[in-house]
Amino acid sequence: MPTRKLWQVLTPLALLTTLPLHADEGQWLPHQLLELESQLKQRRIEIPAQQLADLTKPPMNAVVGLGYCTASFVSPQGLVVTNHHCAYGAIQYNSHGEHNYMEDGFLAKDQAHELSAGPQERLYITDKVEDVTTQVLEGSEQLESGYERYQLIERNRKAVIQGCEADPAYRCSVRDFHGGLKYYLLRQLVIRDVRLVYAPPESVGAYGGDIDNFEYPRHSGDFTFLRAYVAKDGSPAPYSEDNVPYQPAGYLNINAEGVRAGDGVLVAGYPGRTSRHKLTEELVFSADWLYPTQAARYQGRIDAIDALSATTPEVAVAYAATKASYANRMKKLNGLLDGFRKTDIPALKVSRDRAFDQYLQGKPEAQALSHLRQLVAESQSDYQSSFYLNNAQSGALLSAASSLYKWAKEQEKADAERDAGYQERDRKLFAARLDRLERRFDARMDQVLWQQDIDAYLAQNQRDPVLDAQLAKLDFDTLYVKTTLGDKDQRRAWMDKPAAEFEQSSDPLIQMAVALYPGNEARSKARKAHLGELSKARPQLMQAMLDWYQSQGRPVYPDANGTLRISIGHVDGYQAADALYKQPFTRLEGIREKHTGIEPFNAPAKVLAAIDEHRFGQYARPNLTAPQEQAWYCGFLPCAQADAQPFGSVPVNFLSSADTTGGNSGSPVMNGKGELVGLNFDSTYESITKDWYFNPAITRAVHVDIRYVLWMMSEVDNAQWLLEELTLVQ
Amino acid sequence: MPTRKLWQVLTPLALLTTLPLHADEGQWLPHQLLELESQLKQRRIEIPAQQLADLTKPPMNAVVGLGYCTASFVSPQGLVVTNHHCAYGAIQYNSHGEHNYMEDGFLAKDQAHELSAGPQERLYITDKVEDVTTQVLEGSEQLESGYERYQLIERNRKAVIQGCEADPAYRCSVRDFHGGLKYYLLRQLVIRDVRLVYAPPESVGAYGGDIDNFEYPRHSGDFTFLRAYVAKDGSPAPYSEDNVPYQPAGYLNINAEGVRAGDGVLVAGYPGRTSRHKLTEELVFSADWLYPTQAARYQGRIDAIDALSATTPEVAVAYAATKASYANRMKKLNGLLDGFRKTDIPALKVSRDRAFDQYLQGKPEAQALSHLRQLVAESQSDYQSSFYLNNAQSGALLSAASSLYKWAKEQEKADAERDAGYQERDRKLFAARLDRLERRFDARMDQVLWQQDIDAYLAQNQRDPVLDAQLAKLDFDTLYVKTTLGDKDQRRAWMDKPAAEFEQSSDPLIQMAVALYPGNEARSKARKAHLGELSKARPQLMQAMLDWYQSQGRPVYPDANGTLRISIGHVDGYQAADALYKQPFTRLEGIREKHTGIEPFNAPAKVLAAIDEHRFGQYARPNLTAPQEQAWYCGFLPCAQADAQPFGSVPVNFLSSADTTGGNSGSPVMNGKGELVGLNFDSTYESITKDWYFNPAITRAVHVDIRYVLWMMSEVDNAQWLLEELTLVQ
Repeated sequence: MPTRKLWQVLTPLALLTTLPLHADEGQWLPHQLLELESQLKQRRIEIPAQQLADLTKPPMNAVVGLGYCTASFVSPQGLVVTNHHCAYGAIQYNSHGEHNYMEDGFLAKDQAHELSAGPQERLYITDKVEDVTTQVLEGSEQLESGYERYQLIERNRKAVIQGCEADPAYRCSVRDFHGGLKYYLLRQLVIRDVRLVYAPPESVGAYGGDIDNFEYPRHSGDFTFLRAYVAKDGSPAPYSEDNVPYQPAGYLNINAEGVRAGDGVLVAGYPGRTSRHKLTEELVFSADWLYPTQAARYQGRIDAIDALSATTPEVAVAYAATKASYANRMKKLNGLLDGFRKTDIPALKVSRDRAFDQYLQGKPEAQALSHLRQLVAESQSDYQSSFYLNNAQSGALLSAASSLYKWAKEQEKADAERDAGYQERDRKLFAARLDRLERRFDARMDQVLWQQDIDAYLAQNQRDPVLDAQLAKLDFDTLYVKTTLGDKDQRRAWMDKPAAEFEQSSDPLIQMAVALYPGNEARSKARKAHLGELSKARPQLMQAMLDWYQSQGRPVYPDANGTLRISIGHVDGYQAADALYKQPFTRLEGIREKHTGIEPFNAPAKVLAAIDEHRFGQYARPNLTAPQEQAWYCGFLPCAQADAQPFGSVPVNFLSSADTTGGNSGSPVMNGKGELVGLNFDSTYESITKDWYFNPAITRAVHVDIRYVLWMMSEVDNAQWLLEELTLVQ
Repeated sequence: MPTRKLWQVLTPLALLTTLPLHADEGQWLPHQLLELESQLKQRRIEIPAQQLADLTKPPMNAVVGLGYCTASFVSPQGLVVTNHHCAYGAIQYNSHGEHNYMEDGFLAKDQAHELSAGPQERLYITDKVEDVTTQVLEGSEQLESGYERYQLIERNRKAVIQGCEADPAYRCSVRDFHGGLKYYLLRQLVIRDVRLVYAPPESVGAYGGDIDNFEYPRHSGDFTFLRAYVAKDGSPAPYSEDNVPYQPAGYLNINAEGVRAGDGVLVAGYPGRTSRHKLTEELVFSADWLYPTQAARYQGRIDAIDALSATTPEVAVAYAATKASYANRMKKLNGLLDGFRKTDIPALKVSRDRAFDQYLQGKPEAQALSHLRQLVAESQSDYQSSFYLNNAQSGALLSAASSLYKWAKEQEKADAERDAGYQERDRKLFAARLDRLERRFDARMDQVLWQQDIDAYLAQNQRDPVLDAQLAKLDFDTLYVKTTLGDKDQRRAWMDKPAAEFEQSSDPLIQMAVALYPGNEARSKARKAHLGELSKARPQLMQAMLDWYQSQGRPVYPDANGTLRISIGHVDGYQAADALYKQPFTRLEGIREKHTGIEPFNAPAKVLAAIDEHRFGQYARPNLTAPQEQAWYCGFLPCAQADAQPFGSVPVNFLSSADTTGGNSGSPVMNGKGELVGLNFDSTYESITKDWYFNPAITRAVHVDIRYVLWMMSEVDNAQWLLEELTLVQ
C-alpha cells in the first residue's frame, strides 16, 4: 500500500475537526428530526420537527418509492413526479411503432389518455415501520457458528416478511441498521397500475447524457409525471380501464418562486447504501485495493471492447450496453480514486478513530473492536482471493452454465430454504437474464474478456487446483462450437432439467460448471459464515459508538439502507478545484451554450426557440441572491461568491448541500415550508466519495429546479391542464 | 453556409454596442498611449503616458524580442526574464550527456557558470521605429498590375532593409500597418551571445503540458532567466569567454507584492498577428469554411496516424511530433469553432458594419469598400481551389521534390530576385528541413495521409488537368521503391543539381514535380497579384475607417504585426460557462491537487515538499481581495465574485484582461508603476477567438505570478545570488 500523507487541499478546515457530523451531513430517519431542532432552525426550516417525523402527515406521506428511485405525490388525484431516468422503463414501454416518446416526449392530452407504464411498474407507499429486532435475532444468541447464525437470521427475516405480506396489497422487507444492531420491518402499499402522464423528450430529460453524468454545470430536465391508479374500491390492482386515480393521504404543494442561494432545503427519499460508519480499515481496503483493482479490470475490458469493435461491427452492437455500463462504473470509480487522491479521507478518519479508541480504553467493547478488525481483515483477504477465482469463471456462457446448475441444485430444496435469487419468485427474472445473453454476446469478444480474467487469476498466488485443472483443459478453438449454451432455446431448456442430467452432460461448459460447483459453494458458505460473524460483532461496536456520540450530545444517523430518510441542506455553489468555482444555479442560456445538435447535446427546436425568443414566462428571476442577513448560510466560502451569479433567466438545475446517494433519484427537494422546489437527480463528480465521507465543502447534490419544470409545461409544451391540477403557491 | 442567428449567450451587453473598442481592448503602438490618458487613469496606471511612449526610457527600453517571444531586462547586468517555453531551445541545447536540464532544471552557481544558449539564440532590442511609407510605395502608384505592384513593393522593402542593415549590429525589418496604409522600418540591435542563467525543471516550467495548453486554472512556472553578453567594447558579438554582460539602457524593478484582483496592469511585447480590422466577410469565410475545413483535415490525419500507430510502432515514433503539432492546431481550431458557436461574432460585427456603411454613403470610399469586398471574394475563391490543389500534392517526398526543383529554378535568378525562402540566406534552413524528413517519415503512413488529400481533391470540382493526369499515373505500389528521395543523401544531393537534370530524371516524383511546377508557379503568381491589389485597396478603406473613428474621437490600434505594443488591462476572473466561474489567481495547493506523478502532472518532489510543509516564505498572501473602492474595476461581474477567493497561499498564475496574442509569450506584466508583477504566457480557451474579436467578458490572458517565480528562487531552488541581483520593491 502506498504511504499516505496527511494533507488536504481544498478544505484545510476539515483537518481540524474530529467530529463525524458536519453542517449538512446526515440521512436521518424521520423520527430523528425531533433531535435536530437547532439544525432545522439554522436552515430556516419552518415545518415543525414533529410534523416532519410523522409518516402519516405531509410532507412525508407524499413521498413514495419506485423500488430503485424516489417520487412524490403532487395532487390529490394521485399525480406523481419523479426523474425522467426513473421513469425510463415507463416511457420505453410505450415507445414502439409510430410513437417514439423517448425521442419526442409525451404529454397526455387529458387524464383519460394517460398510458399504462407497463405491468412491471410499481409505486411503493411506506405506511408502517416497525422494530422487529427481537424476532429477527430470536435464537441467534446461542449459536457459535457464523454460518448457522447467518442462516437463522435469514429464516427469521423471511418469516417476518411472510407474515406481513399475508395482505397481498403490501410488499414488506426487513432492513438492518448499524450493521445489524437493529432490524426494522417496512410495510409498503404497492400501487400496480401506474400511468405515464407527461415526459419531456430524452434530449431534455437526459440532456448531456452520459457525458454530463456526475458533472456540473448541468442542464438536465430530468423530470416525468406519472399517476397512481387503483380499483374503484381504493385497493391496489393491476392495470384496468375501470381503475380510478389513487387518492393519496397527502401531496406536496409547489412553490413556483423556487429557492435562492443560501436557502435551506429538505430532501426526502430512499437512499440505497453508504459506508460512513465502516471501519477506517474498510475504507483503506476499498481506496487502496478494491477500487484500483476494479478500475484496472474495467478499463482493460473497455479497451478490449473498443479494439475488437473497431474492426467488427457486430461486436460493437452486441457490447454497446455492456461497455456503457462499464464506462459508467469507471466514471464512479475514477471519481472515488480522484477524490481519495485530492482528500486523504483515511487520514481524516484516523483522528476520529483515535478519540474513539481513547473512549473505549478499559471498556469491554475495546475487545469487540479488535475482534471486528480481525474479522474484517479475514473477510477482506477472502474477498481478494475470491475476486480472482470468481473472475476466472467470467465467460458469459460458463456463468450461465453455473447459474443453471445451481438452479437445478436449489430446486432440490424447499423454496424457503433456497438461496436468494433461486426461489420460485425469481424464476421470471432468471429466465429473462438467460434470454438477454442473446443480444449481448459474441464468442470472439467473450473469449478476449474471459482470457483477461484468466490471465489476472494466473498472475496471482491464491489458486484453486480444481479451477486450475479446468482452465488447463479449456480449448477456445472448439469451446463455443461444442457447447449447447450459445443457443437461446437450448439454454432455456436447461432450466427444467434435474441436476443429474447436468452431471451426465457432455457439454464442455456444463461439465466445467459441475466441476466448479463444490468450490464455489464452499466459498459462498464461507462468505455467509463471515457475514454471520460480522452481524454479531459489528452491532457491539456500533452500540459503543452510539453511546460515545450520545455522551457528546450528538445524534447519529444510520448508514443508508434503502429506507425512508430526510436530509437537511442549503442551496450553495462550491470550489470544485483551485480557482474554479461552480455557482449554484444554471440557466436556460446554458442549454443553448452546450447545444451542438449532436446527441446528447441536441436540445429540441421548441426549447431553443423559446430560449432564443426570451419566452421566459413568469419563471425568469432578475437575480437569485440571498438577502444579506443570510450570508452566514453560505458555508465555507463567503456568500457573496455564491450570490454574484448574474441572472435574469429561468433556473434549470441547482446545487444543494443535502446529503443524498443512489436511490435519492427523483426525491422531492422542499423549501422550509415543505413545498416542492426541485427534484434531486445526481451528485457532482467531487461528491462521489461521499458514500464514505461527507466533505461539507465540496459535497453537492444536483437538482432540477421546479421553475424549469413549470417553464417546460407552460412555455414549451402547453401542459395547461396538468399545471392546473398542481397546487402552486408563492 | 449555415444560417446565422443573432444571439449571444454569455455577454448580452456586447450585443448593444457597435463600438470596436472595449474597455481593455487594444494592442497599442507606444506613441498612441498619449491619446489614452483616460484609459490609463481608469486602470490606475501611474507612469505618465509620455514616459510609456518613449522607447528610450523605462519601462519600454527594458522590453526585448526573442524573434518569436518577448522578454525583459531585470538587472543592469543584462539579466533577462522570459518564458520557459521561449527558452526551450537554450535549455535543450545544454541538455546532453550527463546533464538533463530539461528534466532537472538549471541554476548557474554564479555568473561565471552561466551557459551559452547556443549560436542561434538572439535577443533583439528595438532602438528605432521609422515611417518609410514613401520609400516603400515609391513608384507603385503608376502601376496598374497587382503583380507588378507586389514585386515593386517587395523590391523597395528589401532596399530599405539593406540600407539599414549596413551596420551589421542591427537586424531590420519593414512592417506594414493597416493592410499597407503605412510602412515602418524597425531597427533592432542583435545580441548574439545569450546565456542560460536559471530555468526550472520542465515539470514546473511546463506543468500540465499540452493537456493544460490554452486551459485555466493553470499552474505553470513558465519562466527562465537568460543573460545578454557583448564584446568588451559593448558591441554585439558571438559567444566568447571574453564577452561581458550587456548593460541595458533600462531594466524593470520587480514588485514582490504582486497584484490583487481589480488592479490595473500593462503588458508590453511583440504580438504577432490579429485580424480585428478585417472585413466581416473575411471572418465569415474563416469561421464557416476555412477553420471547419482545416479542422476536418487535421482530424482525419490524426485519426489515420492513430489507427496505423496502433499496429505499427515505428509509425507511432516517426509521427509523434507531427501528431502533436496537428493536435495543437486542432485545439486552436476547436477553440475558434467553439467560440464562434457560443458567440456569433459576425453578427456582432455586422452592426458596426452597418454604421460604417452609413458613414460611407455618398463618399468616394464607398466604392473602395465594394472594390475591396470583390477582391476579397476573388481571393477567397482562389484560396479554396488552391487549398485542394496544394493538398493533393502533400506527399512528403513529392513536397521535397517540388521544393528542390523550385530551388534549382530560383538559383537561375540573381539572389535579390528570388522568392523568399529560396535565397542564399535560406540555404541552411532549407537543407535542415530536407534532413528532418529522415526521422519523421514512413512510406505506409505517408501514403495514407496523401491519399486522404487526393480523395478530398477529387471529391470537389476545382480541378487542374495536369494534376489530374499526374495523379492518374501515381502508382503507390512502386512509388516509394522507385524514388531516390527516400534516401537522405540522395535527397540532399538534389540541392546542388541544375534544373535541367531534374527535367531529365527518371525519378517518378521528380518527374511529377517538374510537371506540376508551371501550374504551381502560376497559382503563386496569381496570389501575389491578389496581394498587390489588396495592398492598394485595403489602405483606402482603412483610411476611411480611421477618419470615421477619429470623427468619434476614438483612437485606433493597428492589427498586430510583430511590432512592439502595449496593452492595458486589469486582473480579473471570468464566467467561463453558465454557472462556471474561473477565479483570477491559482495557488500552490493547486499544483498538489493536479499532481498525479505522471507527466505532465509530475511536480518535482522539492516543490511538493515545500507546499506540503507550508514553506511559503514571504510570498503567501492572506487574501487577494481588492479594496472596496475598486469594485467598479471588476468588469461585467460584481467584484465580490472575483474577490471571494480564499487565499493564504502563494499565487502561481493569474488572469488579466490585457489584450495579447502569439508573440506576447514572455511579455512583462507590469503594475501601474511599471514594475514587473508577472510574465504573460498563454490565453484561455474561451479567448482563442480574440484574434478576430475582443470580447471583454471572456478574453483573459494567463500570467505567471512573479511571487511564484520569487518563491521558487528563495524557497525551492535557493537562488540567492540571483535574487540579490534583482531590484525588489514593495
